[in-house]
Amino acid sequence: MRAEIITIGDELLIGQVVDTNSAWMAQKLNEIGVELYRITSVHDEGEQIISALDKAFDEVDIVLTTGGLGPTKDDITKHVLCDYFGTHLIEDTRVRSHIESLYANRPDVLNRLTATQWMVPKAADILPNRVGSAPLMIFHHGTQILASMPGVPYEMEIAMEEQILPYLQQSVISHQHSAILHRTLQVTGIPESKLAILLEDYENAMPKGLHLAYLPKDGLIRLRLSSYGEMSEQEMEIWFEQLKEAVKDFLIAETDEPLEVIVGRKLIERHATIATAESCTGGKLGVLLNKHAGSSAFYKGTIVSYATSVKEEVLGVPAELIKAHTVVSEEVARTMAESVRILLNTNYGIATTGIASATGGYTNDQVGTVWMAWATPQGTYAERFQLGKLREQITDRACQKALVGLLKIINHKS
Amino acid sequence: MRAEIITIGDELLIGQVVDTNSAWMAQKLNEIGVELYRITSVHDEGEQIISALDKAFDEVDIVLTTGGLGPTKDDITKHVLCDYFGTHLIEDTRVRSHIESLYANRPDVLNRLTATQWMVPKAADILPNRVGSAPLMIFHHGTQILASMPGVPYEMEIAMEEQILPYLQQSVISHQHSAILHRTLQVTGIPESKLAILLEDYENAMPKGLHLAYLPKDGLIRLRLSSYGEMSEQEMEIWFEQLKEAVKDFLIAETDEPLEVIVGRKLIERHATIATAESCTGGKLGVLLNKHAGSSAFYKGTIVSYATSVKEEVLGVPAELIKAHTVVSEEVARTMAESVRILLNTNYGIATTGIASATGGYTNDQVGTVWMAWATPQGTYAERFQLGKLREQITDRACQKALVGLLKIINHKS
Repeated sequence: MRAEIITIGDELLIGQVVDTNSAWMAQKLNEIGVELYRITSVHDEGEQIISALDKAFDEVDIVLTTGGLGPTKDDITKHVLCDYFGTHLIEDTRVRSHIESLYANRPDVLNRLTATQWMVPKAADILPNRVGSAPLMIFHHGTQILASMPGVPYEMEIAMEEQILPYLQQSVISHQHSAILHRTLQVTGIPESKLAILLEDYENAMPKGLHLAYLPKDGLIRLRLSSYGEMSEQEMEIWFEQLKEAVKDFLIAETDEPLEVIVGRKLIERHATIATAESCTGGKLGVLLNKHAGSSAFYKGTIVSYATSVKEEVLGVPAELIKAHTVVSEEVARTMAESVRILLNTNYGIATTGIASATGGYTNDQVGTVWMAWATPQGTYAERFQLGKLREQITDRACQKALVGLLKIINHKS
Repeated sequence: MRAEIITIGDELLIGQVVDTNSAWMAQKLNEIGVELYRITSVHDEGEQIISALDKAFDEVDIVLTTGGLGPTKDDITKHVLCDYFGTHLIEDTRVRSHIESLYANRPDVLNRLTATQWMVPKAADILPNRVGSAPLMIFHHGTQILASMPGVPYEMEIAMEEQILPYLQQSVISHQHSAILHRTLQVTGIPESKLAILLEDYENAMPKGLHLAYLPKDGLIRLRLSSYGEMSEQEMEIWFEQLKEAVKDFLIAETDEPLEVIVGRKLIERHATIATAESCTGGKLGVLLNKHAGSSAFYKGTIVSYATSVKEEVLGVPAELIKAHTVVSEEVARTMAESVRILLNTNYGIATTGIASATGGYTNDQVGTVWMAWATPQGTYAERFQLGKLREQITDRACQKALVGLLKIINHKS
């Protein structure tokens, strides 16, 4: 089964909003065995929406649209879908009472524009939107279907999880479909082209229907094996194990999970805690570590010592040490990591100090230099990195290096 | 002039990567007067790429493709473009010497797969890729053009800034084109539907060719006026001023800049400094404040007191206060904000403490409660918010509330 996502909204095409919905939806579709064939983003413009619908119905079984369902004039998706499917709007009393109860405590929202939200296309199946006013609409087009949902990410996510995906599983997807399988490894410490040469024999031996993709980012390469219904799980497992063996010297993770999730799990398994002292990364490493629910089991806190005075006064880095070695030095990184580990009473402390932009007296040549230290029960390790020239690239890569370094230490020491 | 972006890569369609490139490119295209008509994302699959190219050349003047240019087998864009434009690969000595110098210190990268990168389509104009090995390619299709560039975001950005955009401006775009104009306001404290009712007269009076869009997110609504070459800058300015007047009671920003940029500018103007003490936001507010180059002029640091012990021992919040009021309370938020302001010696201190998930003994009813405090030279302000039920939504909204609150305080006090 194939699907297309059509995202509707001028904001996407003038670059005011990044489309994060499609990637999220793609994962969920793959999980229920639906291949996402294409993503198309179009303006809030009738003819363009209709042209995208025509093209989608030529090629896929399921069309998912997001966006254009607000109560304001710029949102036209519902009206365009009415025209496209030759139907008209009628009042839906269930949607009306849902909206009235949703905004029971906010009378200023229950106005005549909001009232347009309970007018729904007669020909559509209406599913409830638990968290918003725009109803979810399912249209039938022969054996094909179209589902329309809001573009606000958390509304779309709840709509998909609670309504659209169960609907597709019950009504649309044949239960004999073959699964779409993806397995991902993460490797580090080898250039992409060299890795591909290492894997040449492996790739040449791969059967038709098995695909290998290389996704390099921030010094990590994700290696993904995919099969679109042409291979059993057992066969996939055999190929995955062979891939693991082939790259074992560079392997850092056996799943596609973010590194901070793997780090968190390993820390919890060891009943260990962590804190960070961050200068150039500005708290990003701490945000990664506490991003997921349950992180309070291993993450205790962060001190972002952006100003030198904070390094001295809060982290207790001696002024003479900074004077002797500069703030971006092995000595300062080590002291920061050890201080935050003691101050926050954790098993591990990670510190970053580096130059993320050519301001504050630094030259362009110096940009990208980062010193990092890991204070552990077995001692403190430090390493110097050169992480590029762009601010965001440098800080993102530094976070990856910090997590990779910690994983290596934890794996080695246990 | 109209453009289409075609992003190529299985990783986009299985949800392994979010397409952030298109939004960035859209902004840059608009700045040089090119309207982005559509974005299409397709698999690394020859027929699908060709079908997307055919459709794009039916409707737009400029086609921009990203992705599929790596040295590994899964990347096929260059070969597909060769077939499409009826040309073949030849060695490019300039590209070769560039790649050889780029990797002069990394002999393991200069292998036979990397060598395929200096084979380029004979019919294409080749532009240099300063930071990577994949050459930038321009193909001509009658009066239309196609530019192909890598999908790695920072490589694409440098390619666009340094090569593709100047090329389009010199060679493709008529200098008589009318500008695409966007002006955005940000408002807060009014529901979207009520705002639309408030603006009904304004919208009814708007001339054809002027568009108003509502973009609500995290409690802020961005109101965007757009004109695609049908209005002069002076006319736009008049309509923008009228819009500002109509929403003045809810106005928080007169540009589309992120709030942290506006906050940073106002702090620098006032020679003021800031620090944050964060619990539920986990350092996200600090990351926002130090996200942009030059932030060290006003941002000094953050203490993320995720664990209660850090609130007590680093921020000096008395254990009795926490016992008496719980960690998520006005009293604790106030003390955190005042402590971090004193500890880091800044003019402003912002604190957040709240419940971002139903772990650690909290019930689902309690999730979303956030206490926030702003310690300022004029005293400390505190406010309680209810910010939804989803972890990321709660923390993102809390950061917006913190910045909105600070802007109101700064604007009011100066």
